[in-house]
Amino acid sequence: MFEIRTDLALETREMYKENKQQEIPGVEVEKYEKDIATITYVKVLDEQGSQIMGKPKGVYITIESKSLKQADSDIKDKMSKLLAEELVQLVPKKKKFKTLVVGLGNWDITPDALGPQVISKVFVTRHYFEAYGKIEDPTMRQVSAIAPGVMGTTGIETVDIIKGIVEKTQPDLVIAVDALASRRMQRVYTTIQISDTGIRPGGGVGNKRKELSKETLGVPVLAIGVPTVVDAATLTNDTIKLVIEHLCEQSEKGSQFYNLLKEISDEDKYALIRDALEPYGANMIVTTKDIDTIIRNISQIIANAINIAIHPGIDLKDVNRYLR
Amino acid sequence: MFEIRTDLALETREMYKENKQQEIPGVEVEKYEKDIATITYVKVLDEQGSQIMGKPKGVYITIESKSLKQADSDIKDKMSKLLAEELVQLVPKKKKFKTLVVGLGNWDITPDALGPQVISKVFVTRHYFEAYGKIEDPTMRQVSAIAPGVMGTTGIETVDIIKGIVEKTQPDLVIAVDALASRRMQRVYTTIQISDTGIRPGGGVGNKRKELSKETLGVPVLAIGVPTVVDAATLTNDTIKLVIEHLCEQSEKGSQFYNLLKEISDEDKYALIRDALEPYGANMIVTTKDIDTIIRNISQIIANAINIAIHPGIDLKDVNRYLR
Amino acid sequence: MFEIRTDLALETREMYKENKQQEIPGVEVEKYEKDIATITYVKVLDEQGSQIMGKPKGVYITIESKSLKQADSDIKDKMSKLLAEELVQLVPKKKKFKTLVVGLGNWDITPDALGPQVISKVFVTRHYFEAYGKIEDPTMRQVSAIAPGVMGTTGIETVDIIKGIVEKTQPDLVIAVDALASRRMQRVYTTIQISDTGIRPGGGVGNKRKELSKETLGVPVLAIGVPTVVDAATLTNDTIKLVIEHLCEQSEKGSQFYNLLKEISDEDKYALIRDALEPYGANMIVTTKDIDTIIRNISQIIANAINIAIHPGIDLKDVNRYLR
Amino acid sequence: MFEIRTDLALETREMYKENKQQEIPGVEVEKYEKDIATITYVKVLDEQGSQIMGKPKGVYITIESKSLKQADSDIKDKMSKLLAEELVQLVPKKKKFKTLVVGLGNWDITPDALGPQVISKVFVTRHYFEAYGKIEDPTMRQVSAIAPGVMGTTGIETVDIIKGIVEKTQPDLVIAVDALASRRMQRVYTTIQISDTGIRPGGGVGNKRKELSKETLGVPVLAIGVPTVVDAATLTNDTIKLVIEHLCEQSEKGSQFYNLLKEISDEDKYALIRDALEPYGANMIVTTKDIDTIIRNISQIIANAINIAIHPGIDLKDVNRYLR
Repeated sequence: MFEIRTDLALETREMYKENKQQEIPGVEVEKYEKDIATITYVKVLDEQGSQIMGKPKGVYITIESKSLKQADSDIKDKMSKLLAEELVQLVPKKKKFKTLVVGLGNWDITPDALGPQVISKVFVTRHYFEAYGKIEDPTMRQVSAIAPGVMGTTGIETVDIIKGIVEKTQPDLVIAVDALASRRMQRVYTTIQISDTGIRPGGGVGNKRKELSKETLGVPVLAIGVPTVVDAATLTNDTIKLVIEHLCEQSEKGSQFYNLLKEISDEDKYALIRDALEPYGANMIVTTKDIDTIIRNISQIIANAINIAIHPGIDLKDVNRYLR
Repeated sequence: MFEIRTDLALETREMYKENKQQEIPGVEVEKYEKDIATITYVKVLDEQGSQIMGKPKGVYITIESKSLKQADSDIKDKMSKLLAEELVQLVPKKKKFKTLVVGLGNWDITPDALGPQVISKVFVTRHYFEAYGKIEDPTMRQVSAIAPGVMGTTGIETVDIIKGIVEKTQPDLVIAVDALASRRMQRVYTTIQISDTGIRPGGGVGNKRKELSKETLGVPVLAIGVPTVVDAATLTNDTIKLVIEHLCEQSEKGSQFYNLLKEISDEDKYALIRDALEPYGANMIVTTKDIDTIIRNISQIIANAINIAIHPGIDLKDVNRYLR
Repeated sequence: MFEIRTDLALETREMYKENKQQEIPGVEVEKYEKDIATITYVKVLDEQGSQIMGKPKGVYITIESKSLKQADSDIKDKMSKLLAEELVQLVPKKKKFKTLVVGLGNWDITPDALGPQVISKVFVTRHYFEAYGKIEDPTMRQVSAIAPGVMGTTGIETVDIIKGIVEKTQPDLVIAVDALASRRMQRVYTTIQISDTGIRPGGGVGNKRKELSKETLGVPVLAIGVPTVVDAATLTNDTIKLVIEHLCEQSEKGSQFYNLLKEISDEDKYALIRDALEPYGANMIVTTKDIDTIIRNISQIIANAINIAIHPGIDLKDVNRYLR
Repeated sequence: MFEIRTDLALETREMYKENKQQEIPGVEVEKYEKDIATITYVKVLDEQGSQIMGKPKGVYITIESKSLKQADSDIKDKMSKLLAEELVQLVPKKKKFKTLVVGLGNWDITPDALGPQVISKVFVTRHYFEAYGKIEDPTMRQVSAIAPGVMGTTGIETVDIIKGIVEKTQPDLVIAVDALASRRMQRVYTTIQISDTGIRPGGGVGNKRKELSKETLGVPVLAIGVPTVVDAATLTNDTIKLVIEHLCEQSEKGSQFYNLLKEISDEDKYALIRDALEPYGANMIVTTKDIDTIIRNISQIIANAINIAIHPGIDLKDVNRYLR
């Protein structure tokens, strides 16, 4: 239905509303302000909603804040706390459970390295439990973590690698972290999306067998994602739309020109743009120059939030002590 | 005259030809194939040519080859050789001369790090000459090198830093290496521009006092540049043009629609796009994901070419031995 | 028997010979020069040899060359060829077989990043075979690759991660690449060890269940390693030995002093040194400053050698074309 | 006098006291605890003290704290504050003054990159003053910054590069930041030394003309340094000393052996060790594996401290906001 690439449920819903001037049937939306962020819940309630959205049933939480990309350590702590509070509602309410954190993406390519960088900062404890033969601890829960790489580097579907590890280590929960693509440049580095519906490595919709999800892995999969790029076709498309709107405003409604412009369908435009950009190759992305620093800061926020949400003995006061 | 940002003389001339359907007066163009590359000489001969181009009088050599971004070491050697052959024509034909290589750009930001990466690979010899009190050597010439950083990091105009160093070390030639912006994605990582006219750090036209040039430094300045990014406004603009052309082809010539579309001037379109993109900030760039590897490879090609062109004792056979 | 840490069979044998003045029973040694390298085969033939060596039965091939750490691309090609020629003898002599390359170590810590860097350069093909439903190709064999991280980062024994992947992807051969510790600084970055006996992630001897080997994975495991560090205790120990030898040379044989010095056993000395160094923590290593560049160069040599040895369609002439 | 390499005044004095059992004449030492750190003032008062120390007259402040290498952001803030409080006493007590921050070292080599990393984080303002023609501001002072590279990369004495910049920009104060060598592993990453006596790039004593100091630059030079490596000869020497002390303890005082061991002079031992280590090359260093992260954290502490000490409008509360 919507060919424009976005991994954010928020944006899929936004595009639907823009086009159809109504809420998606079977989808419920709640939005509120909290401290320095805007939090939106997009709940996909039934099959119809799921089909229109092109996303599985479940809850998609978006935390938006311009502050996400700031280096200020107080603000980083606030963002960690906000994210931890949302995560806590989605992790098991049990005294002991085991978590596997999966960092999707390629650590060698900066805009794709968010997942692996989170892995290298998360507080991993499983080996201590194993070494001392413990199964419970008042301050820690069992956490393991892996950055499996991407199919282009491994030659293996990520879900197959993770399935093997899940079988060997029997976690009760998988948390998957990935860099996302957004439709709008202003959401890049300013938005965190959490969902309880799993994730497809590499993004996009497609083959269900390739998802990390309860169906494929047998345990609940919590996904955390942050948009780090806009693809060039999407950006161009949105800009053209603004240009055409501007032209329409300047011509008389009902004039032939106005009608001609209106007639160009979204699908046609997007196809044209794709064609025009094709010679430049699939690797073309739009991003910002200071991406290295920003990815490092956001990976710290996410690792801290996971540490707070999982380990009963870690809170905001001492969370930076557990960062590696 | 041309607001679209390009640092390539080749593209400025291309845009003029597209618009005016004629060659720029006072500009001479020669083009030929050589091994795996296309080499174009754009010679700006007089004041008129210089004003239209927005670039000083002098020669602008462009080496274009898709192979530039390949990791293949044979091809890297070929590109080094091609580049060295062009450089040799522009360096002094004297037995002894001193060269200062300046790596412009910010080493912390990958698409901007080409200059600093070349500096860290160039074969630097000045300190040996100083240590042994020599002024001449049959195999080496005196080379020093500096990556001064960018004004946003130093707070100092780059020309002032380099002027100080030129006064202290008295080189006969400055070679400045910088990452450039191109108008077209297909030129990114496939083009090297050499010129004998100096360079303005940070790109673009402007204040003559800020250029690295014979006027400001008192010695000839050879500039070597490679496009590493396209700015997002430029890309969008070019794509929109393709879309409109496509629409024009499909409407009848002379129809009202055709005329309306034709009427939108380039300047209007570009202004509209700039407005539309403004909220995303000035840091927005279009590039490819594998930029780290490509910048590393190209900096090696350029450092090798400089080493071959400057030192009488280094040729292609042993050039990689002098890489650091 | 030998407490001094080395991962090189060559050095274990060397130490035995120094102490006992004889060859290890059950161990055969062959040595020859080839192009720019010295190649040594240490064959552990029986149980006795294995026990004294503290290493499993099998062949340990060492390629030593000062040129290994040079950036010269001709020399890099020569080293790739030498390594490929040894590897070819150890891979299956079949038309089709599947290989999983495992890059051990932590990509975030330079002296430990050799394995992961090789993974990011190896030519991976398994996903093409899967996508096109092929099982055979005249120019390529099936290759997959993974850098699983280290237990401190994952919380999971590496063997468990790899076992899961082997079960899912059914390779016929595992090639494991790791950074090693050497006893002597002059072997750091100058030596490649290949063996057909598997490898223990993190180095050293110990629990057999934690090895990557035919016993644990069910498929042959080829190990490739390069020493990147000497541990500080080892270096100090070797230096002290040289100092004491020097003192002995200067005192009369048979004098009380000479005898006292001779009496200090190797074990006592090493224990003393360990105690003295303990407060500085286990992370202390001896290495060189230019480690980043050297690790990058060597990882390219190893990736090229694996590509040549595995894929029938790749030879030295075009091997750099397949590097990523 | 003391050949063992250390850049810390604290250690030079320590070694003298160990050898001579008395304080250095002409040197005054004060030591106190403050929050999480121990602060020592070594004041070199006269010519005699200066000659014995091998360091110019002036004050050398050492802040020692195990917490320096921790990632905890509260502790990082505390360390920034402690450092800022010492710096404030050494900067001019004037309403307006101009500072040039110089980051010594090579940004390409991690243990040497402390200076350049500080430069990339310091809050630079000079270009704003220039752009708006201001000479004073209630919240900011004029700051410029440069990382000139090392002589091996530039071919130019660092003092010549800086002298050129000082002439062009006329600062009132130079702050030079460098990575140091320590004599003891436990001081690596746990110690900050500040002095008002200038610094010699590359460390060690030597040619006065090559120092960054009031004499060479014409403006006061404040030096900030952190030990990031111990050289291998030093470490080995100290360990051997511990071993010999241990042997002495076990032999009877007055025995021939005891006397023989005591007879080996420090100079002889160090010469022996240097000889033994020479084949491994000058690049050999002892450091820890997690050096990348630690250097990043410490450079943030130092940049923050400089920002607080220089700009009247920045205090601890908002300092992280000015980090780049």
